[in-house]
Amino acid sequence: MLPAVAVDLGGTNIRAALFPPDQSKPSQTRRVLTLAEEGPQAVIDRIVDAVRDLGIHDVSATRTGVAAPGPTDPVQGIVYGAPNLPGWDRVPLRDLLAERLGCPVWLGNDANLAALAEWRFGAGQGVRNLLYLTISTGIGGGAIIDGRLFTGAHGLAVEFGHMIVDPDGPQCGCGLYGHLESFASGTAIGRRMAALRAAQDATALEMEPTAAAVGAAARAGDPLALQVIQEAGIAIGRGVASLVHAFDPERVVLGGGVSQLGELIFRPARQAFDASVMHPAYRANVEIVPAALGDDGGLIGAMLLARDS
Amino acid sequence: MLPAVAVDLGGTNIRAALFPPDQSKPSQTRRVLTLAEEGPQAVIDRIVDAVRDLGIHDVSATRTGVAAPGPTDPVQGIVYGAPNLPGWDRVPLRDLLAERLGCPVWLGNDANLAALAEWRFGAGQGVRNLLYLTISTGIGGGAIIDGRLFTGAHGLAVEFGHMIVDPDGPQCGCGLYGHLESFASGTAIGRRMAALRAAQDATALEMEPTAAAVGAAARAGDPLALQVIQEAGIAIGRGVASLVHAFDPERVVLGGGVSQLGELIFRPARQAFDASVMHPAYRANVEIVPAALGDDGGLIGAMLLARDS
Repeated sequence: MLPAVAVDLGGTNIRAALFPPDQSKPSQTRRVLTLAEEGPQAVIDRIVDAVRDLGIHDVSATRTGVAAPGPTDPVQGIVYGAPNLPGWDRVPLRDLLAERLGCPVWLGNDANLAALAEWRFGAGQGVRNLLYLTISTGIGGGAIIDGRLFTGAHGLAVEFGHMIVDPDGPQCGCGLYGHLESFASGTAIGRRMAALRAAQDATALEMEPTAAAVGAAARAGDPLALQVIQEAGIAIGRGVASLVHAFDPERVVLGGGVSQLGELIFRPARQAFDASVMHPAYRANVEIVPAALGDDGGLIGAMLLARDS
Repeated sequence: MLPAVAVDLGGTNIRAALFPPDQSKPSQTRRVLTLAEEGPQAVIDRIVDAVRDLGIHDVSATRTGVAAPGPTDPVQGIVYGAPNLPGWDRVPLRDLLAERLGCPVWLGNDANLAALAEWRFGAGQGVRNLLYLTISTGIGGGAIIDGRLFTGAHGLAVEFGHMIVDPDGPQCGCGLYGHLESFASGTAIGRRMAALRAAQDATALEMEPTAAAVGAAARAGDPLALQVIQEAGIAIGRGVASLVHAFDPERVVLGGGVSQLGELIFRPARQAFDASVMHPAYRANVEIVPAALGDDGGLIGAMLLARDS
């Protein structure tokens, strides 16, 4: 078995890691800023530099997996574009990187790959049917169906964040309106908090707080912060109910920064889920649990993609 | 190969049919009223009578498939219950019928089985990934994933009608609120039409019309009817967009009585779908088409279940 190189391309950071054969923990990792505003060419240069900086003697004797945000075509190796990657439009990232690195490259959606990682090494172990949501700046999704990563007919599944949950709702990161992401992402939580504060005190001219800051305020007893996180949790629980009606999984794993708010967000999410299933059978056979791999899901999933492909 | 008996248990009618080996068209069919208000025992008696009335010389030399509404457990052969089957609560229909008929019986959700039938013999032929919605009194769903009927981990997938599309929306047939079914089913169309007429003319004391009657009024130019069907079509198109983001199918088949409104409902549905996908890739690779098997989907799917199990 060859060593695997994994790359997690995010809107903020590029992470690269070297996984020795048969290991699920990297022996080397690098993190550089994406500086996405400089456009695809500069970002691809930085991916190549980050991989080279892992100090691998012979990159051509490795296999590389890449986790990318937003809709991707894993068969053709194309990144269609993502809100946090300005200027990316159908970029053939797999082939560009294969040529630059001189090794075979596989590409997948970051949340799909994080689902794969959670299933193999994290909170999804032991089941054959799993849904995964990563709730962060945006909301991504992944699914394991009957013991396999599900990517749909064209690799475009499963964008759970872009389920319409209220057509009159706020604008989403993708530009459309009323998606789960527009109600429950970290961005949505910060925006809602700023709006409620401004409504309470018209002279407040505050930056949108992060979800973590709203969480800290909630733990300190701030009633607005508690309200905002409860609303987001309810949106998540209702969204998960819709997804459980559709997919009937054994387990739902919630990851991403917002999930790290812990019971503050899990309690209202589970309550809303329980209240939103159409029949008790849907809640009798499914559990909603936190992710176990933290930020490493995409990276580990990219390694698995390279190793297993 | 044995002949197959198929039963489609609906809230209004029970249909039974005999399919000779290797045939997709029945040689005998029977239809009796369900009279669901008389409870499970009476309904099961009528199913048995309808099958016996097919005039099969030796029922024990057949295999029987049963399509039932609402959440079912196909592994245990249990009907969990359905809004239009009052008094049904975890009825072990498969084993009860097997004992009464003296032949092996298989049970499945009616919309799942209709999806299977459309895929094999109807509007879903030629693809490996298909979503099916039957839009009728309620809204049911089915999915073919990678060339197989998808029923989820416990057989409870895919209840697309009970996706929350607006938490402030009307009550659903299942008792909860704001589901796709509460906006776009035939029941919802009739209720909305009656409400708009009452708002226009407070003295109108009208029965809720059927979706077909609303369709006829729309074709005759009634602006309220046109509005109601357009609203339902938009709800369907948005719901399909959410499902396409999640499942990434090759084709979406719409069946049931409401789909028989034709372009009146397909045009706004397709327009809303096109406007509601987060990236052009989602609409480039999927088509939304009418079902081809009419009311026979559940019956043919039940035959396939019996034949292929």
